[in-house]
Amino acid sequence: MKVRPLGNRLLIKPVIEEKKTEGGIVLPDTAKEKPMRAEVVAVGNIDDDVEINVGDHVIFAKYSGTEIKIDDEDYILIDVDDILAKYED
Amino acid sequence: MKVRPLGNRLLIKPVIEEKKTEGGIVLPDTAKEKPMRAEVVAVGNIDDDVEINVGDHVIFAKYSGTEIKIDDEDYILIDVDDILAKYED
Amino acid sequence: MKVRPLGNRLLIKPVIEEKKTEGGIVLPDTAKEKPMRAEVVAVGNIDDDVEINVGDHVIFAKYSGTEIKIDDEDYILIDVDDILAKYED
Amino acid sequence: MKVRPLGNRLLIKPVIEEKKTEGGIVLPDTAKEKPMRAEVVAVGNIDDDVEINVGDHVIFAKYSGTEIKIDDEDYILIDVDDILAKYED
Amino acid sequence: MKVRPLGNRLLIKPVIEEKKTEGGIVLPDTAKEKPMRAEVVAVGNIDDDVEINVGDHVIFAKYSGTEIKIDDEDYILIDVDDILAKYED
Amino acid sequence: MKVRPLGNRLLIKPVIEEKKTEGGIVLPDTAKEKPMRAEVVAVGNIDDDVEINVGDHVIFAKYSGTEIKIDDEDYILIDVDDILAKYED
Amino acid sequence: MKVRPLGNRLLIKPVIEEKKTEGGIVLPDTAKEKPMRAEVVAVGNIDDDVEINVGDHVIFAKYSGTEIKIDDEDYILIDVDDILAKYED
Repeated sequence: MKVRPLGNRLLIKPVIEEKKTEGGIVLPDTAKEKPMRAEVVAVGNIDDDVEINVGDHVIFAKYSGTEIKIDDEDYILIDVDDILAKYED
Repeated sequence: MKVRPLGNRLLIKPVIEEKKTEGGIVLPDTAKEKPMRAEVVAVGNIDDDVEINVGDHVIFAKYSGTEIKIDDEDYILIDVDDILAKYED
Repeated sequence: MKVRPLGNRLLIKPVIEEKKTEGGIVLPDTAKEKPMRAEVVAVGNIDDDVEINVGDHVIFAKYSGTEIKIDDEDYILIDVDDILAKYED
Repeated sequence: MKVRPLGNRLLIKPVIEEKKTEGGIVLPDTAKEKPMRAEVVAVGNIDDDVEINVGDHVIFAKYSGTEIKIDDEDYILIDVDDILAKYED
Repeated sequence: MKVRPLGNRLLIKPVIEEKKTEGGIVLPDTAKEKPMRAEVVAVGNIDDDVEINVGDHVIFAKYSGTEIKIDDEDYILIDVDDILAKYED
Repeated sequence: MKVRPLGNRLLIKPVIEEKKTEGGIVLPDTAKEKPMRAEVVAVGNIDDDVEINVGDHVIFAKYSGTEIKIDDEDYILIDVDDILAKYED
Repeated sequence: MKVRPLGNRLLIKPVIEEKKTEGGIVLPDTAKEKPMRAEVVAVGNIDDDVEINVGDHVIFAKYSGTEIKIDDEDYILIDVDDILAKYED
């Protein structure tokens, strides 16, 4: 399925971080904090002065956007205003 | 009955997805998540730069719009701003 | 009594739909859903590009407007923005 | 006491409707619905295109405006936007 | 102490109305309704088209403004928009 | 520590009023009403037509602004719009 | 990890103040008030007339912004409007 965001929206894919306790135990999903990092998958009709492109890594505001499933994977449709920052590892 | 949306509204028809449990049991309506996918049936007086046309498949914001029955089928009258994205299978 | 809506308001008369259960029993008023269909009775000072005229059949947003009684019949004074669509049978 | 509304406000005098039950009993004030009809007593500095004058009979939005007592009678100071319609008997 | 309101504010002095019960008993302060009448004591930087001057008697919106004590007497600093009307006895 | 307010903000120092009961007992801090008088200590980038300068005595809206400690003394960073009036003793 | 704030946002690093009780006991983190002082680490696309630069010490509004972890240290992504003042020791 191909999704094309409308208006000033983006389609992003949350980054799932493996998280080990100090004792080395990998925590299951429900025990982790909600991820706030994502990769930009598709870009709607956003302003030219917003420097966000497909492939960028971004930090987004917690609880913002709408979660959708595409081919059984989790994505988020989100307003560009809820993208707080870009980051590089 | 013929319905013509007014202002920046659309008439959309939610897509009912059959959903089977892992054991193969088809879930009745009340056990399913609210659908967020729809087909555009009629378009009101929306801005020219919004690329939405009759027949498009769209993803809309949960709990938005007003549900109405037309000839015993469920439709939604919805603001164009609550249409998050278009999709193709 | 003659009522003339002010500003961008309309006077509409809700359409009461008789509703029979599958067994053929006519439900009394309190058992029915609130009607959302109405006929336009009078039009205030609305924008020219809104194509609503006296006699039009319209669908309006649930719980919007103010109910009034005129000569013992129920009417609604409603903002033109709460008129979602026009319809024809 | 003479009251002059300021800004886009009106001074209106609610119309008290005598209301008899089907058995002919006149209900005391507390048992009646809040009146929503009034006569315009004084007009502030409202826009020229609003056609409301002293002496007009109007329908106003329930619970809007501020109740005041003038010489022991009840009046309401109300925004012109809360006047929904004019009426004639 | 001399107080000069800033912006579109006024300094007003609430009018305390003596209120006797039908039996002639003067009610103490706490048993009275909150007064809504005041005299204008000082005027800030308000628009020229608002006709309010020092000495005017005004009716103000209940619960609006900020109560202050000046030389042990009660005053209210209030937005000019919360002044509903002027009155003369 | 030197603090410079940003935007349309001020730094003010609340005036602590000693308050004696009628019997002459000085009330400790927690038994007093929150002070609403202050002296202006520093001024940000406010509009030219607002006549507030360092050293002015002002009355501010209760519960507005943000309390901060500078060198163990209490100050408030506050929007210029929350300054209601100036006063002189 | 390198973080670049978008729009009118800043990345700031809260200043942790050691705080001793009068008896000289250092309080653990949970017993301290939330810090409201920070150093500016990165600046997004803010207006030219806002004089905030990397390295500035600022006071920010309590509970504003979004906390993020970068390389196991705490930072805050915050709107420039929530920066109340600059300070120098």
